[in-house]
Amino acid sequence: MITVGILGAGQLAQLLAHSAYQLGVNTLCFADSADCPAARLSPIHVGDMQDEAALKSFADTVDVITFENENIDEAVIDFLCAQKPLYPPKKAIITAQDRLLEKQLFDQLSIPCAPYRAVDSVEALEQAIDALGVGILKTRRLGYDGKGQFRISDTRQGAEAFAALGSQDLVYEGLVNFQGECSQLAARDQDGNTAFYPLVENVHREGILRTSICPALDQRLSEQAQASTQKLLDELDYVGLLAVEFFVDENGLVANEIAPRVHNSGHVTIEACNASQFENHLRAVTGKPLVEPIVLQSCRMENIIGEFNRNQTDGHLYYYGKTPRPGRKLGHITQAIVKE
Amino acid sequence: MITVGILGAGQLAQLLAHSAYQLGVNTLCFADSADCPAARLSPIHVGDMQDEAALKSFADTVDVITFENENIDEAVIDFLCAQKPLYPPKKAIITAQDRLLEKQLFDQLSIPCAPYRAVDSVEALEQAIDALGVGILKTRRLGYDGKGQFRISDTRQGAEAFAALGSQDLVYEGLVNFQGECSQLAARDQDGNTAFYPLVENVHREGILRTSICPALDQRLSEQAQASTQKLLDELDYVGLLAVEFFVDENGLVANEIAPRVHNSGHVTIEACNASQFENHLRAVTGKPLVEPIVLQSCRMENIIGEFNRNQTDGHLYYYGKTPRPGRKLGHITQAIVKE
Repeated sequence: MITVGILGAGQLAQLLAHSAYQLGVNTLCFADSADCPAARLSPIHVGDMQDEAALKSFADTVDVITFENENIDEAVIDFLCAQKPLYPPKKAIITAQDRLLEKQLFDQLSIPCAPYRAVDSVEALEQAIDALGVGILKTRRLGYDGKGQFRISDTRQGAEAFAALGSQDLVYEGLVNFQGECSQLAARDQDGNTAFYPLVENVHREGILRTSICPALDQRLSEQAQASTQKLLDELDYVGLLAVEFFVDENGLVANEIAPRVHNSGHVTIEACNASQFENHLRAVTGKPLVEPIVLQSCRMENIIGEFNRNQTDGHLYYYGKTPRPGRKLGHITQAIVKE
Repeated sequence: MITVGILGAGQLAQLLAHSAYQLGVNTLCFADSADCPAARLSPIHVGDMQDEAALKSFADTVDVITFENENIDEAVIDFLCAQKPLYPPKKAIITAQDRLLEKQLFDQLSIPCAPYRAVDSVEALEQAIDALGVGILKTRRLGYDGKGQFRISDTRQGAEAFAALGSQDLVYEGLVNFQGECSQLAARDQDGNTAFYPLVENVHREGILRTSICPALDQRLSEQAQASTQKLLDELDYVGLLAVEFFVDENGLVANEIAPRVHNSGHVTIEACNASQFENHLRAVTGKPLVEPIVLQSCRMENIIGEFNRNQTDGHLYYYGKTPRPGRKLGHITQAIVKE
């Protein structure tokens, strides 16, 4: 049996391990502690990501390497790539872990995105605010679930915002007046074949994904989403599952960000589709043919954030086994949408 | 989180643990070794079934107990029932582990089954052969996958057959001239609500299940199957998943045997239905409402027997992690049936 090494052992690794079981594929997760969500469903290789000996013995044990989080040091990527195939590829990781590179890629491929400016000083920020009006200042790296962001609603907040985000490398985005959000999930295999999921509709609150509906009620933007995603997949010579998050405004889709991995908004595909995002990701990285996604039933996924109500009895309840904490994703529930 | 204790840690326990993850339910499997299929997906409580201290500490750790194999000593059942709820109930276990009691229950409920005679001597066997003609001599207990059976095609084989099966308590069944085989899977919850799966079509070879198709192409016998199964569920005051295997002959369904647990022919429900047999079993034993099964896609399951061909890339491949051995179930593959 083939063994997929997964860097990380949180809920995405846990869900990958759950899917791997249905493909006759083993998993081994690299984590700094055996006390991690993925341990429920996968063996764990305990080690420090900075320890090359630990990485080496991990790589020696697996056939191919993937990851649940794109924030991986370039030196670690290079070291692992020298040992075993690593998918999705380095270029996708490096691009996705930096908001500026990500937006530059959107520009290069003529994929509409929010207007932006690179910011490395208060002066640069004030010029950006002058040019783009109100918007959001974001760290280039390591932001997730609304972290590393500062919303500028008053053009005099430049200095305050710059200080609040720790004066690191930043990017300033003009506000997109959006009516909705959606994500395009797609997989690309080692021969360049692609498989697209139906457009998924997303609802965020306080910067955190709350709800995903598959398929989105409105699929009219599906063609635009697939065309943009196809350009990204090909440009990155991508292998694995890619998620592209979009805003929907009056002109169509505005790309927000990419995730070079399985994505929270794709959890709904487990119940909604004949093959989940996890399955097609594993198929791509292990060299198995992709499954063309077909919707079997419309579903809604709700994230469980911060605290957990134990009275939930309907649908599928995925409980990741993490210690509850405000704003933390503890699990999710997926239910079929019953038509009246 | 609720923890379901499972007696046994083979593939059925492994598949239950896989499903439990999607219900926010924990599992703990009782096994005599930590080296078992279920260990991939569940913690294992290592102990000897004859050791009451081991059973006690297992029972203390879980909220409810179920099992993957009905061959449990009555003393063990009684001991565990005194500690924690155990489902399916004792009467179902005792009946299903003895072919004679099983057939007597069919008779009591007017469910057609093969003609049979209890056999405890060569003389009794010869009388049974005189009365019923050719047929199959079976051990009352511990038979599975065609083991513990002797086919009598010549009425002079009585003494040979009796000796071959070790002269234990036996039952002789007249041959059913069947055209096909099917199974009815159904779940009953703690309030007596029931949920029926569509009839599943089965193919056996050499006494071992090879293929299951869900739904069976011909559902005309579904009403008869459900009526018989409903009688069994109610008579046994059943909680959990029950499988009833039938032969199909010119007059309709002939009950063959019952399994008071999740069943090999129900593996196909994972991909075919909105809720698998494993899910409804866990729902029943944990007191959650059942899901009314709906077919999402027609599927075919093939067992992997004895040896494994690694080139399988389509469908879902469940590989149990057992040492290959002739006639042993090593895994199964489920594929959607694509209509041309």
